[in-house]
Amino acid sequence: MKIVIFSHYKEVADEILKDSYAIVIDLLRATTTMIWAISNGAEKIIPVEEIYEARLLKNLNKSVLLGGERGGVQIEGFDLDNSPLSYKKEVVFGKTVVMTTTNGTRALKKAAGAKRTFLGSFINAKKTAEYIVNEALHQGIGTISIVCAGTEERFTLEDILCAGYFVELFKESFSNIYLDDLSIASYELYKKFENDPHEILKYSYHYNNLKKLGFVADLEFCLKKDFVDLVCEYKNLVVEKV
Amino acid sequence: MKIVIFSHYKEVADEILKDSYAIVIDLLRATTTMIWAISNGAEKIIPVEEIYEARLLKNLNKSVLLGGERGGVQIEGFDLDNSPLSYKKEVVFGKTVVMTTTNGTRALKKAAGAKRTFLGSFINAKKTAEYIVNEALHQGIGTISIVCAGTEERFTLEDILCAGYFVELFKESFSNIYLDDLSIASYELYKKFENDPHEILKYSYHYNNLKKLGFVADLEFCLKKDFVDLVCEYKNLVVEKV
Repeated sequence: MKIVIFSHYKEVADEILKDSYAIVIDLLRATTTMIWAISNGAEKIIPVEEIYEARLLKNLNKSVLLGGERGGVQIEGFDLDNSPLSYKKEVVFGKTVVMTTTNGTRALKKAAGAKRTFLGSFINAKKTAEYIVNEALHQGIGTISIVCAGTEERFTLEDILCAGYFVELFKESFSNIYLDDLSIASYELYKKFENDPHEILKYSYHYNNLKKLGFVADLEFCLKKDFVDLVCEYKNLVVEKV
Repeated sequence: MKIVIFSHYKEVADEILKDSYAIVIDLLRATTTMIWAISNGAEKIIPVEEIYEARLLKNLNKSVLLGGERGGVQIEGFDLDNSPLSYKKEVVFGKTVVMTTTNGTRALKKAAGAKRTFLGSFINAKKTAEYIVNEALHQGIGTISIVCAGTEERFTLEDILCAGYFVELFKESFSNIYLDDLSIASYELYKKFENDPHEILKYSYHYNNLKKLGFVADLEFCLKKDFVDLVCEYKNLVVEKV
């Protein structure tokens, strides 16, 4: 199995992507929030890039919830922000949520060119990796592409650490594995800080922005591993439980 | 001082680059070879992308030496390959060398949009960093851009490790320093393997290619630190000693 990591969506090489299974990681916070919402019973998530797209979908069906952020804060007239902690069972159970995020949605749309596209986070990494390993072996898939959302089209440390955790999980599962240079680097970085990712992330850009905005509880939440036991897939513009 | 690393030339953000001092790193082997050639008395290096450009310059002046590689090996009719060990004093002293490389030349041309553009390698990193620190402080420069050449427009581990060494040198020199996410990652990776970079590079793509081609001595050479005591600058299409 070949593991390839792209540090943001513009880096994605279509010729590698197209025959691979893809994992999209927007750790802080889009993919973590979507996975948590599904885990709390949301029926589906429709990620959209623009606020007016979200409003259009709400006009078509008043029962959908609108979620997302601009500059880290809730959008006027929206039901929810982008904090996973807002997506409680009593709020999202049985609902369709339309979410507008920038980096995360672009990364999902880009990665949709893969054979299948999954959402990645620390909170359900192990389950997701297990599922992908089984399916990939079964379907004869030779490459797994990890598409980091990045921030403002740049390398982003928290996505890379989570990607490094996936690399570790795949190293444990495949006897014959080839890692590209960024996979090697992500794995080594993850291993250096696996016991306390905050130790390195406290110097990083996006983590600090969220901290300044007061989302300390979100940072704790998004860095906890494997307490969610489901797999989310992005298909036909919609995120659903596999 | 703000330190920003770009993992390959296509990642370079012009609006950051233009007010910065840039360091271009094509560790294996273009920038190391150019620096070593200058150190052995070559008067100047003219990096060009295409073989026919190199031949045109030789037609204009028979005394220039042609150097470079395609697929790691010497080009037909050229005087030199891309191994630093070929650029001995008795061969290059007093000479102009026209070198054709792909990633390295593209990175130099891209980085030429900076206020000043220097060549980076392990062999003269300390001297280069010292010079840049002094000049940057003197000229009120607020950003240092490290432009990794990368390989085939992708993240390349050996360039990143060398960039991480520059980050360490700058951390020692500036009391007030801001590192972007890739600078933080490069620094941590460098520190993890500073005593034996071969330990991680033996898994990496380009290092392995060169090893397979038999350039083991080059790999040893390019990873040795600070035995060269000069600084090289790229200006008006030419690499010269500062």
